Order: sequence, then C-alpha cells, then structure tokens
Amino acid sequence: MPDANLVEKPGQRVIGLMSGTSCDGVDLALIEISGSGLETRFKVQGKFHQPYSEDQKQFLLQCMDPRHSNVKVISQANFLLAGIWAGAIDSMLRHYGEKAADIDLIGSHGQTVYHQPQREDCQGLQVNSTLQIGDPSVLAQLTGITTVGDFRVADMAAGGQGAPLVPFFDWLFFSRFQKNMLILNIGGIANITYIPSDGDRMKVKAFDTGPGNMLIDQMMQRLYELPYDHNGAKASLGKRSDKLFAYLQKQDTFPDQPPPKSTGREHYGQDFVLSLLRKAIRWRIPEPDVLHTVTEYTAYTVWKAYRDFIGVEIESLVAGGGGSHNSFLLKRLQEFFTKIPVENVNHYGVDEDFKEAICFAVLAHECIQGNPANLTAATGAKRNVVLGKICPVNKS
Amino acid sequence: MPDANLVEKPGQRVIGLMSGTSCDGVDLALIEISGSGLETRFKVQGKFHQPYSEDQKQFLLQCMDPRHSNVKVISQANFLLAGIWAGAIDSMLRHYGEKAADIDLIGSHGQTVYHQPQREDCQGLQVNSTLQIGDPSVLAQLTGITTVGDFRVADMAAGGQGAPLVPFFDWLFFSRFQKNMLILNIGGIANITYIPSDGDRMKVKAFDTGPGNMLIDQMMQRLYELPYDHNGAKASLGKRSDKLFAYLQKQDTFPDQPPPKSTGREHYGQDFVLSLLRKAIRWRIPEPDVLHTVTEYTAYTVWKAYRDFIGVEIESLVAGGGGSHNSFLLKRLQEFFTKIPVENVNHYGVDEDFKEAICFAVLAHECIQGNPANLTAATGAKRNVVLGKICPVNKS
Repeated sequence: MPDANLVEKPGQRVIGLMSGTSCDGVDLALIEISGSGLETRFKVQGKFHQPYSEDQKQFLLQCMDPRHSNVKVISQANFLLAGIWAGAIDSMLRHYGEKAADIDLIGSHGQTVYHQPQREDCQGLQVNSTLQIGDPSVLAQLTGITTVGDFRVADMAAGGQGAPLVPFFDWLFFSRFQKNMLILNIGGIANITYIPSDGDRMKVKAFDTGPGNMLIDQMMQRLYELPYDHNGAKASLGKRSDKLFAYLQKQDTFPDQPPPKSTGREHYGQDFVLSLLRKAIRWRIPEPDVLHTVTEYTAYTVWKAYRDFIGVEIESLVAGGGGSHNSFLLKRLQEFFTKIPVENVNHYGVDEDFKEAICFAVLAHECIQGNPANLTAATGAKRNVVLGKICPVNKS
Repeated sequence: MPDANLVEKPGQRVIGLMSGTSCDGVDLALIEISGSGLETRFKVQGKFHQPYSEDQKQFLLQCMDPRHSNVKVISQANFLLAGIWAGAIDSMLRHYGEKAADIDLIGSHGQTVYHQPQREDCQGLQVNSTLQIGDPSVLAQLTGITTVGDFRVADMAAGGQGAPLVPFFDWLFFSRFQKNMLILNIGGIANITYIPSDGDRMKVKAFDTGPGNMLIDQMMQRLYELPYDHNGAKASLGKRSDKLFAYLQKQDTFPDQPPPKSTGREHYGQDFVLSLLRKAIRWRIPEPDVLHTVTEYTAYTVWKAYRDFIGVEIESLVAGGGGSHNSFLLKRLQEFFTKIPVENVNHYGVDEDFKEAICFAVLAHECIQGNPANLTAATGAKRNVVLGKICPVNKS
C-alpha cells in the first residue's frame, strides 16, 4: 500500500483529532507511539484546541437535525469541516514549530452527525447506521499526511453499536495499573469503561451511561445564554428539585437499558430538553435548581450504570473529558460513589481534555498495524474487527 | 498495513462495482489484474447486474434531492446500499461458483448523491464537494474483502472536479492502439476521452459532454411510463422539432462551457426535463418527436464537444455504456461524425455495459499500488494524487 514502510516504522508521530457532539470545537493531540496492541506506549508531544465560531456550530447542529439537513448541506459540511481541521492542524504544527512532513499519520474521529445503533425498518430491511463527516480523504490531501478516519462504521457493520470506542484505549492504557477501575469520560454524552485488575479483554465492560455535558450545556444556553456551567457555579447555587428529578428518571429510559448501548443527540437533544424545560416552567422551579437537578441527574446516571451493570467492586473512578472540569459535577459523583475515590485522569498522565484525541491517534495506528480495535464487550459487535478507512497520500 | 502482501501479489482478482446516476441497479465486474500503471493488463472473469426495485430507486432519488433528503435518510442509505451490494456480490460469486476468500479486493465507486464541482459560499468559505454513499467499510465487513471506495474525493480536494475518472482507465487501456481515438461513455451523463496516438498523458483530454441517457430516460418515463427507449424505437418513429432543439440549445449552457467540466442530475434532472416538457406541450409537439429531438440533442452535444474542444482529427469514436445499446442514438452520432467510424467498445474487448465497473476495479488496484489515478487534464486537479479510501478487513 502507498506507505507500506509506515507499518514497520518505530516511533511514529500521529495526530489524533476529535470533534465531539457538543460542537464546541476540534481537539488535536500529537503523540509519538511505539509498540502496538497492549504493548502500545505513547508520549504526548502537543495538544491544541480550536473552537468553532457560533456560525460553524449552528451549521453543524443543522447538519445533525433531520428537519433542517439535506444532502447538499451534508456534502458541503463534509468538505468544509475537513478544510477547517486542516487549518487547525496547520496552526498546531506552527505553534509547536513542527512540519507536516515529520508527521506520519492522522487519526480523525470526524464529526458524528447521525448515530442510530438500533435497527429500524428502511426500505423493508432492518438498518442501523452511523455517519461521521469531515472527510478523511480531504484531510489527507490538504495536509499531505496519510489519514485514517471513520472508525465507527466497521464495528457497526460487524453487528456492534459503533460505540463506545474509547474503552479500547482505556483497556490498552489502564490495564497496566492492575486494579479494578472505572474510567469515566464526560463529553456531550458520558461513558464508562470497567477495567478488570487482570486486564482480561473479555471482562472489560463499557457503555454510554447517559448525558455528560449535554443536558447541562443545553440548559445553560436556554436559561442563561451561556455555553456551559463554569465549575458548576450555577448548579451549586441551587438545590435539587425532587419532582423534576423524578420526572427525569421516568422520562429517560436510556439508563435502564442493559448494555451494550450508546446514545447521542438523537436522544438527549432539543426535544428532550424542551420537554424538561416545559415541566420546570410549569412547576416554577428556579433556574439554579434546574441546573442543580440536571447536574445531579447526570452524576446519578453514571452511578446507576455502575450499580446496575458492573456489579464488581472497584478501587477508583477515573474521570476525564470536558465535563471533569465541572467540580460540582465531580462532587455529586463523589457523593454517589461514597468511599470509592473519584480521581482525575490527569493523575495518570492522560490530559483530561485530549483523551479522545489521543485515543483516535492510537486507533489510527492500530488500523495501520492491522489490529482489530473494537471491544466486543463494549460495542456488542459479533467479532473483533479492524476499524477505519485508510486515506493514502502520494509516496514522497 | 493490514494486507501488506496484497501490494506484491501478482494476478490479483478484483471486483469492480458501479452504481450510476440513473439508479437502475448495480453493475459488478470480476477481473484478474496483472501489472500496474500503463503495464496494467486484465482479464474479465465475470460480470453481473442486479437491478434495484422501484422502491429502492425512489429511495435513492430521494437521497439526491435536497428538498426531500435529510441526515437520517443519507446515513441509512449509506448502510442500506452497502448491504444490497454485498448481497449482489454474494449472488455473483455463487453464479460463478467462486468464493469470497479467493477475491483480493473490491473497488467500489459508490452511489453519487451529490456532486458540486463549482465552489460556492458555505459559511463564508468557498466550498465544492462530492458525496458517494454505499459505505466501503460496511461493504468490506459484510463481504470480508478489503474494499477501496470514495475515489472522487481526493481529486476534488486536490483542486479537481472529482470527475470524470474513467478517462484514466481509457488512457491505460486504449493507449496501446496508437491512434487518435475518442472514447465515449454513455451513462446517465455522457463523457468523452481523447486518446492521442502517442499515449502522452498530458495530451489526454476528457470531460462530460452533457446528457447521456438521462434526458431520454426521463422523457420515456414521463411520456410513456417506460424506463428507457429500447433501441431508440420511439425516437425513430418521430422527427426532429427544430423549435424544441433550438430551445434545448439555448436553455442548456453546459455544452458551451470549456473543459474541464462535469455535470449530473443537479443540471439535467427533474427541473430541466419539466421545463422542456412544458414547452413541448405548449407547442403541441408529438411525443415521438420529443424523443427524437432529445436523442438527437444528446448526440449533438457529443459532436459539439468534439468540434469545439478537441480540435484534433480522430480515427475512430468508440462508444460504450448503457446508452450504446440505443442504435438510434448511435445512428445520430454517426451522422454527426460523418466519415469517422462510430464503433462499439465491445470490438476492443471491453464489455460496453461493464466498462465503469471494470474501471473501478482497476482504480482500486492502482490505489493499493500507491499510483495516482486522476488525469489532471480531465479533472482539472492541480496534481496527480492517489485516489480512494482503503477499508481493510482482518488478516486471515
């Protein structure tokens, strides 16, 4: 294949790219990788965040909305995003005084605009699907760097939910600590990975627990016109509304579903939040109380997931992702988990904000090595499969 | 990479897959390839056509229509189509008593649902884009065969129109005959490739000429509720309407544009045909005359393209694609081209109905070899680039 030497090359330098469901921007991590599979070791050499403009964010949200998207918008956004990301990569490389020619590979998660893990009737067939945009082939051509993208598709085609994929990285990374751990990632959606102390791949469990920042952020936008609740300041001013909490528990059936499972904006999007907001208004619940309740509910769904579906004693809960900055959310988590320490993933040398970007750099490297990179226990796939599409560039 | 031995393996067996803008079905060709680049030689070992049901066709047309498509439909169709194609590949393999394990590679063009080569404003940036669905990673997982897809994207990202791609194949295949030739492919859209007698890549010219079957088929559907004009029987019953012909010449500005250029259903779709039909009704032009005129116009646009933009004497016009079955259309072509013989591509050992499928098998093979497979003279790209995304499967 175009860059066959890449497979053998030691110390590969890989850029990982993540653009999450919250549509706030793109995260980049530059890592140097050696080894592969469980022998994978990496060093973070750079990290970079480029926020989207409000227009860009609204455009992405339009792409995700079946009522306002169409084939033209999807096609254009697929190219546009790759262009924006190529610009971000260029900015990062300049920032670190690096050249594209010295980067071996890009691993791009892409931007999920649709994710439907449950099959439903489509033209008489039972179809599930996932769609990430920000074309990896465009990204490869614009940067001149071989790019691997579209990791979720192969898992779903192999009978999985196409998510979560980060648990594979968690397993690769946290197995070495040889204790029962729960790794929590708080993005738009929250997900957990249970790592057994013996590192047995078959014993790993992982699934989405429910909302991460998604409900909190949407509520902040609707109630305060602010993008997020900084350190949980608003929520900490309020108190829990039992009525609203009970309504959430009743309305939201996702936390009750047994894993494997995954969710997204389809479930916790505008409709969900508007219906919640209508209740809050009808019941005259003060705004900080709404924030408090939604934040507590977010922590509750993580704890409920552990209680109902892990069923093994753990030594620590390790939180990462943008939501781990919300100290109020972490406090609520600590209360639910009582004596089990809630730690930050930073303590383990993984940057909390760039874990997913690092993950997709590692996944791209695994693809090039021909290693299957889904955890069937996490995604429900029928078999372990190689994930990703390799977009080669000309031999140099 | 996952199947690194594939690069070196002689006599690779590759399935090419094409699903054209006419949405009538999927064409498959199984070829055995040796050599690469200009040394490529192949033997056709199988061919297979699986028609789409009327429901499937309507669903694909919905996907292409900005008024009726949305992100959900696109995402579902992307998976659904790959599933339908995996079934078609299975049927072909059974028909020929072959096993998937003996096939090295699939080259899948995919189904174009959007193609916009001209840049236009999108979020303040000038964006062009192309979107093919029928996910190659799904196809790879369902068949167990490494699949290369999405060939057009890289060319467009390199400044090209992403089309036409078949001219590369024409150049690879027809150079050996060492004469000035014009290769015509009549799909939904028609395109020509000029091959110079000395085989110089830089002298090749290629572009879409305008309608292929697209206007004829749509008129047959609207006037007779038939899918196409078999052998041009209806058209041959009528006579040319000079008024309608002149209207077509005036309304349709595409044939006047200088190459490189490409077009599709965006231009020659429903709106174009409905406006034509309204004129035909107002002017009381009999139905066979409408068919005759549209067919003659199709031939005229091919000739006009040769006259205006090739400007070199040729020894033969070689027609292929579904439209080359329309003997009335070929007769009209012969009249326009007077003494230059209009031949069928069959005479050169390339099946007229499966040329594009064969082409994408060859392009997939070139991708694996790391060979650039766009002709910049045809697409207008700034440089020759490797085309396609490689979707690996597990090492066996």
